[in-house]
Amino acid sequence: MTSWVQVPKDSDFTIYNLPFGVFESKRLSPRAGVAIGDKIVDLSVLHEEGFFAELSQLPNDIFLRDSLNDFIGLGKSVTRKVREIVQNLLKEENDALREHTCRGKAMVNRKEAKMLMPVKVGDYTDFYSSMEHATNVGTMFRDPDNALLPNWKHLPVGYHGRASSIIPSGIPIHRPKGQFKDPNMEKPEFGPSRRLDFELELAFVTGGPTKMGDTISTEDAEDYIFGFVLFNDWSARDIQAWEYVPLGPFLGKNFASSISPWIVTLEALEPFRVAGPAQEPEVLPYLKCEKDHSFDIQLEVYIQPEGFNPTKVCTSNFKYMYWNIAQQLAHHTINGCNINVGDMMASGTISGPTEDSFGSMLELAWKGTKPIQLVEGGERKFINDGDTIIMKGYSEKDGIRVGFGEVASQVLPAK
Amino acid sequence: MTSWVQVPKDSDFTIYNLPFGVFESKRLSPRAGVAIGDKIVDLSVLHEEGFFAELSQLPNDIFLRDSLNDFIGLGKSVTRKVREIVQNLLKEENDALREHTCRGKAMVNRKEAKMLMPVKVGDYTDFYSSMEHATNVGTMFRDPDNALLPNWKHLPVGYHGRASSIIPSGIPIHRPKGQFKDPNMEKPEFGPSRRLDFELELAFVTGGPTKMGDTISTEDAEDYIFGFVLFNDWSARDIQAWEYVPLGPFLGKNFASSISPWIVTLEALEPFRVAGPAQEPEVLPYLKCEKDHSFDIQLEVYIQPEGFNPTKVCTSNFKYMYWNIAQQLAHHTINGCNINVGDMMASGTISGPTEDSFGSMLELAWKGTKPIQLVEGGERKFINDGDTIIMKGYSEKDGIRVGFGEVASQVLPAK
Repeated sequence: MTSWVQVPKDSDFTIYNLPFGVFESKRLSPRAGVAIGDKIVDLSVLHEEGFFAELSQLPNDIFLRDSLNDFIGLGKSVTRKVREIVQNLLKEENDALREHTCRGKAMVNRKEAKMLMPVKVGDYTDFYSSMEHATNVGTMFRDPDNALLPNWKHLPVGYHGRASSIIPSGIPIHRPKGQFKDPNMEKPEFGPSRRLDFELELAFVTGGPTKMGDTISTEDAEDYIFGFVLFNDWSARDIQAWEYVPLGPFLGKNFASSISPWIVTLEALEPFRVAGPAQEPEVLPYLKCEKDHSFDIQLEVYIQPEGFNPTKVCTSNFKYMYWNIAQQLAHHTINGCNINVGDMMASGTISGPTEDSFGSMLELAWKGTKPIQLVEGGERKFINDGDTIIMKGYSEKDGIRVGFGEVASQVLPAK
Repeated sequence: MTSWVQVPKDSDFTIYNLPFGVFESKRLSPRAGVAIGDKIVDLSVLHEEGFFAELSQLPNDIFLRDSLNDFIGLGKSVTRKVREIVQNLLKEENDALREHTCRGKAMVNRKEAKMLMPVKVGDYTDFYSSMEHATNVGTMFRDPDNALLPNWKHLPVGYHGRASSIIPSGIPIHRPKGQFKDPNMEKPEFGPSRRLDFELELAFVTGGPTKMGDTISTEDAEDYIFGFVLFNDWSARDIQAWEYVPLGPFLGKNFASSISPWIVTLEALEPFRVAGPAQEPEVLPYLKCEKDHSFDIQLEVYIQPEGFNPTKVCTSNFKYMYWNIAQQLAHHTINGCNINVGDMMASGTISGPTEDSFGSMLELAWKGTKPIQLVEGGERKFINDGDTIIMKGYSEKDGIRVGFGEVASQVLPAK
């Protein structure tokens, strides 16, 4: 498949991908678009021109809303069909849009667009599904011989996070302030966090809704998953360490989470479906899966000190995750917890088996004991003010590339 | 102050109270109302008739929306003024509404109304602010000699909960299913929870919004708090015990939380403001308070087995809480976490110093070792299928009564 839109060779946004997002520009109000190469297809224009006429259930203004929630809520049969129609219109051999008078209006330069949050996030859940990450953390903070807690291999551990502070790529964050107490301090102190960290994650966006009391099986789970974004789960390790017992992370996490603004659909990721790690001991029946729900997605993290070039500090892969998305969603709803369209469920830090594949500075610099040497801009135990953290993700196979673009956010000094 | 509306002697909804809620009926679409006695004042009718004419910032349909969020978002100066106007209109000596042709339309019988969620909850936070509760739990599950964890007296411990499953009084819940592993089990088992519990809490509803990076001081905190509801934080103790390390409660809590549907404003609670417990050790400066932010609110919990009369099993008081609402909100935002209108922040279980003032079955029946004898319907270690849990709350002083009504919800068998 090739497109009449010029797609740079290394572009994440090929005709095989076609991720959905919400954008605005100086002349355009917020609206839904699909990315291809350096362009955005303005879905509201295509709709106005009747390209989606066969989908009678699409409201007139569905693509002129400030989030994709209502669109995603129409269900997979509709969202899949819209993507198919767009894909057909973009094919090299198809003149319908290429030669249409609306083409100029329908194709927006990505450079001129400002990306907004793609969805209004109702509830946000963060899982803890990388065995390597959980083992690393358990080794550092608890007992190397019993790094994984007894429940870890029986259920995908997760907790609720803050939805209000999830922001799209490009918005800088302020270093959070808070309480921390190192073992050598007599009492807690207050100030800017001294151990600001990233966490490399992917998050899926849900469809739905379900009713309270209903459950979603692993078999049906993907019907409720629209797609994925890159997710930087900013973490203040010193604040977190002091506050988190016994009820979990709170202020060490909820000051900000940054996401890539384009939602890559499950359909686009289909060619990259792989088997996950073997699970031993055997999981309970409600967590068993008939098919593969893991995906081979290359992930990279860069630190860019202010005024310098970025250094890649981590190369990981989503396929390492022990618990898959179907198991996460089945577990989340097994007690009847209801989900809404636009909920965001993050994977937890994605660490691989090697030291360069760890998904956080905590692990990469091993609790500050092994500083990371940057190519430019010094060494890092954690994140400095002025640093920009860039996360990228893509899948590639048989000449097909499907990527996420990036989530890039700079850290400003504490307010 | 007396009203021309007849208010039964023991009514929670006196002219001193005037809580806000959202209701609908067979003939009325969802709308905002204020409760007095057995009536609801339909605010949309008063607005239509020009009673709020002096408030030019009130949109025409502000009281015809399905939540109070937009109204609360107008700020305290507006919401306070609306309450004042309604209070004046309801006074014995005021004929303006009493003799108005719209009176019949404006005064709805509470019996004919169905109460809905008063706000769309953006994010929900649960604190853990009762020293007695935290001590009881620490004593049961950890070390009686070090029941409180080291951080507890330095910060109001809290965690994020699930917003989607907060429901108003009257909606039954299903017993959740899930994994649990008693110490005597070799591996985890799956089934309906065997230790379903209530938690007696109050929750405040926020105004706002604030921007990311901004903080709210203890001095300004109450400007961002619209009012309170009763909050039953349903808990499945067996599921919670197995899942909660290291990231906190998840499926043990997120299947349901039930609230009383009328938001009692801070203004109505003003006469019941009291000093909280002395805090020792001294708290960090950002947690210090100039004035009192605790309230003397009597709280009661009843268990009503199906087909029997209810038994009161707990008598507690909100004034026992160690951490107050100003400290909770100042702490929540000290790291720059942004809040939105309609966020809900619950207190954590409100346990008092005596055994009959504990706010959960876990504590009342002391981990199942001291079953509670009901007047009718047997004894209870936890909650049985068919039981209705009823929570009530009220303040009373110098002949003034201000109450919450109740949150009552029945437990149905697991689906």
